[in-house]
Amino acid sequence: MHSVGRSWLLLTGFVLFYVIYLLFGALVFSSVERPVEDKLRQDVEALKREFLNQSCVNAASLERFLLKVLAANKYGVSVLRNASVASNWDLASSMFFANTLVTTVGYGHTTPLSDTGKAFSILYALIGVPFTMLVLTACVQRIMHPLVLAPVGLLQRRGMQPRPATVVHFVLLLAVVVLCFFVMPAAIFSVLEPSWSFLDGIYFCFISLCTIGLGDFVPATQPRQKYRQLYQVSVMVYLFVGLMMMFLLLRTIHKMADLHGLTTFLQLPRCEESDLDDARKPIVEDRHEAQTPPFLTEKEASKPLEPGSQPSYNTINTG
Amino acid sequence: MHSVGRSWLLLTGFVLFYVIYLLFGALVFSSVERPVEDKLRQDVEALKREFLNQSCVNAASLERFLLKVLAANKYGVSVLRNASVASNWDLASSMFFANTLVTTVGYGHTTPLSDTGKAFSILYALIGVPFTMLVLTACVQRIMHPLVLAPVGLLQRRGMQPRPATVVHFVLLLAVVVLCFFVMPAAIFSVLEPSWSFLDGIYFCFISLCTIGLGDFVPATQPRQKYRQLYQVSVMVYLFVGLMMMFLLLRTIHKMADLHGLTTFLQLPRCEESDLDDARKPIVEDRHEAQTPPFLTEKEASKPLEPGSQPSYNTINTG
Repeated sequence: MHSVGRSWLLLTGFVLFYVIYLLFGALVFSSVERPVEDKLRQDVEALKREFLNQSCVNAASLERFLLKVLAANKYGVSVLRNASVASNWDLASSMFFANTLVTTVGYGHTTPLSDTGKAFSILYALIGVPFTMLVLTACVQRIMHPLVLAPVGLLQRRGMQPRPATVVHFVLLLAVVVLCFFVMPAAIFSVLEPSWSFLDGIYFCFISLCTIGLGDFVPATQPRQKYRQLYQVSVMVYLFVGLMMMFLLLRTIHKMADLHGLTTFLQLPRCEESDLDDARKPIVEDRHEAQTPPFLTEKEASKPLEPGSQPSYNTINTG
Repeated sequence: MHSVGRSWLLLTGFVLFYVIYLLFGALVFSSVERPVEDKLRQDVEALKREFLNQSCVNAASLERFLLKVLAANKYGVSVLRNASVASNWDLASSMFFANTLVTTVGYGHTTPLSDTGKAFSILYALIGVPFTMLVLTACVQRIMHPLVLAPVGLLQRRGMQPRPATVVHFVLLLAVVVLCFFVMPAAIFSVLEPSWSFLDGIYFCFISLCTIGLGDFVPATQPRQKYRQLYQVSVMVYLFVGLMMMFLLLRTIHKMADLHGLTTFLQLPRCEESDLDDARKPIVEDRHEAQTPPFLTEKEASKPLEPGSQPSYNTINTG
């Protein structure tokens, strides 16, 4: 099959499977956790009614009440009247939770309550986390050419030396990423979320795209938000594309460190060689060239399954 | 300088700077957040006293009270009598928080309350996260030989083919990691934490070492725990070494995927070439060999700072 076509087919397959995997996770989490949540919510409601019906409130009864309220709150079940409208485990919210698991952001604003939910979280992340890294890597691999290699090539054709060209390109890329994935989303969040300031928005974007995910600010968790499910899906798309751009920035930095001799100086692994092939294999501009395999991978591509045809970490014996 | 000696000196420098960076973060977070926390704690205490002194408790006053209690709880300030003993921002706790930031685990059991704290978190993670990845990568780079390359070499010398040898080694490595970094710590946590089951322990270890960090289970947060600060430091060391092992597993999988032709098949980046050099540069067994640069990096090592002496992502023009 045409190598470029196969490359995009693979990527589409990855992304499609990623969405299916999220939907599958959402269905399981929703069906496992929703009954437990409903039960907890009813218990907390009953507890509140009982507490209010007491003739006198003493310190001990308040302490017991608060202990249970805070325990329920830990699992995302709030005792407040306003908050108890929407479920944390409807399909969109469960998908949002599944997404925070596989991207390793993990806000923890809702967490599985049942042992089944916990065990499934482990299994789900065990497959989901490496797969998500794979999808993100595959996406970054495909956008490296238009967003990194081509612009740096353009700067060089305009007469710049390799090193200044990579620095200028990196500064421009960084500015675009900061604007499109931090400043603009932060402004949007500060409008959509009633209690968020602009700094809160920046803080949320940064904590999310670094995959720290403290969970003190999570969008679409306020009661009575319009189009809540659409909002949650949009945040998921933002997280995915944002993480992709963070991966791209990291790889650009890694390549720049290689070029400037930093990785050699610090005795760290160099950025993988296959991007050199990308550089020689224009994806967009020159399609007929892509059919002739680039010289570095020619040997590898022709014998992908024969042992010894590729560099292996066993050269310790053969070298 | 002797290349192996320089390599270990660099690593020691990295780890030392990492600890100093954590201490610095702890000092800043503690000094910024502790006064705000104390103020919030006093407010909540006053609120509780006021609530208890009311002649009659109605639904509206309870709602107002709970709203404030839950808001304070979000920042790790609990209204419960037992919980209010220790601060979340003493030196050890602040260091623990700084550690969850830079490792991107981010439990979020405590979060900065002030705008200064939030802004500092962003700056701190901006430097800390890439630096931690650098330290982890450098550590993994140094343990690749004794834990991966040497054992695989040994299996091959015993007559195994390269591919089965890597598979057998990987299964053994995985078993050791699961035992030492999941099963054993989970057993220890289920003893040390009164409310944790063994599954909770496994769930905590997994959610932490994947850097998801939901924060529903965080050790050393119960009141009146003995040697709490020592416990927190131990958990930090566990997290660091555990993450290192996860990085090692990932790199071993990546190398295995290379060897088995999977990365070529999926058109993903191959594992970086420099490990091939590691394979030819025994760190422990044969020290005099390390002085002669391995053939792949000879050129690079001799001219680390000259432009064009290393493969760059600018070959798009020169290739």
